[in-house]
Amino acid sequence: MKYCSNCGMPVQLRIPEGDTLPRHVCSTCSIIHYENPKIVVGCIPEWEDKILLCRRAIEPRHGLWTLPAGFMENAESLAQGAERETWEEANARVEMGELYSIYSLPHINQVHVLFRARLLDLDFKPGIESLDVKLFQESEIPWDTLAFRVIHEPLNRYFEERRRGQLGFHLGTIEDVCK
Amino acid sequence: MKYCSNCGMPVQLRIPEGDTLPRHVCSTCSIIHYENPKIVVGCIPEWEDKILLCRRAIEPRHGLWTLPAGFMENAESLAQGAERETWEEANARVEMGELYSIYSLPHINQVHVLFRARLLDLDFKPGIESLDVKLFQESEIPWDTLAFRVIHEPLNRYFEERRRGQLGFHLGTIEDVCK
Repeated sequence: MKYCSNCGMPVQLRIPEGDTLPRHVCSTCSIIHYENPKIVVGCIPEWEDKILLCRRAIEPRHGLWTLPAGFMENAESLAQGAERETWEEANARVEMGELYSIYSLPHINQVHVLFRARLLDLDFKPGIESLDVKLFQESEIPWDTLAFRVIHEPLNRYFEERRRGQLGFHLGTIEDVCK
Repeated sequence: MKYCSNCGMPVQLRIPEGDTLPRHVCSTCSIIHYENPKIVVGCIPEWEDKILLCRRAIEPRHGLWTLPAGFMENAESLAQGAERETWEEANARVEMGELYSIYSLPHINQVHVLFRARLLDLDFKPGIESLDVKLFQESEIPWDTLAFRVIHEPLNRYFEERRRGQLGFHLGTIEDVCK
């Protein structure tokens, strides 16, 4: 951020009075511009013993596999966001189920929220952000070409728990591995 | 948003190509400015059969009671955010416990996340955003002067569940009552 979105004049990065963190503050109209973490919402679409994955048509991680998920929009609930993303990326109709996992990713200022969901039919096809959309049994999951650690971790846990017949909610944090 | 935070020139509200929602787009440098829901994190600090509430020294709802909670900051996890807010608003040290509730508030573009937490000592005192900080037994909770519905609902459920000896996680949506 270089300019004030309210008046168009330059902003300064400084700690406002009574605050503890540096913020972009407008030197002309005095507005403080806060920046906060974004929420990514998605789901694990289930069909019998299979789950649906999407192959990414966009960066980052073009060509790799992921669950349908994306940035939550204003004016929707978490579950509505997950349903919308599943429709946009896979043209798949789902009935949202239990909340499955929430991961904080402090190094990229995101919180990832995953639901389990019931795929309602097999009329799915790639949305514009996907190259391919497919159902996978556990033995077919492309573990080495999954797009993100925040997909790998809950998926791995999902199949482990499913084998034990005990699917439950998990709250976690994924730290930057490159630090 | 009236001006581009990247180049300072005016923005237009329009649906970018390949998108479905109107965004603020810069007509000069073409940057798309996305706006997404914010996360509010807080906790229910527990001490024996009492919980800690803060009386707000700021608007909105100046003078009303609430749980320690506030906007999640970049570079922190959900639990770290809840701990920080409890420290800032009540100077209270807590050990974060189980996730207790998550409410989507689509009409104000927020997601509220509450943990249960164990108050570690009684050396709390109002932070600059609080007029007062106090422990309350269930019978003493100021139900009529609680600041927000998103505090009232989980607190009401918390005491109901505690009476039944069955505290569990809840996911909900609070719609605009004024619509």
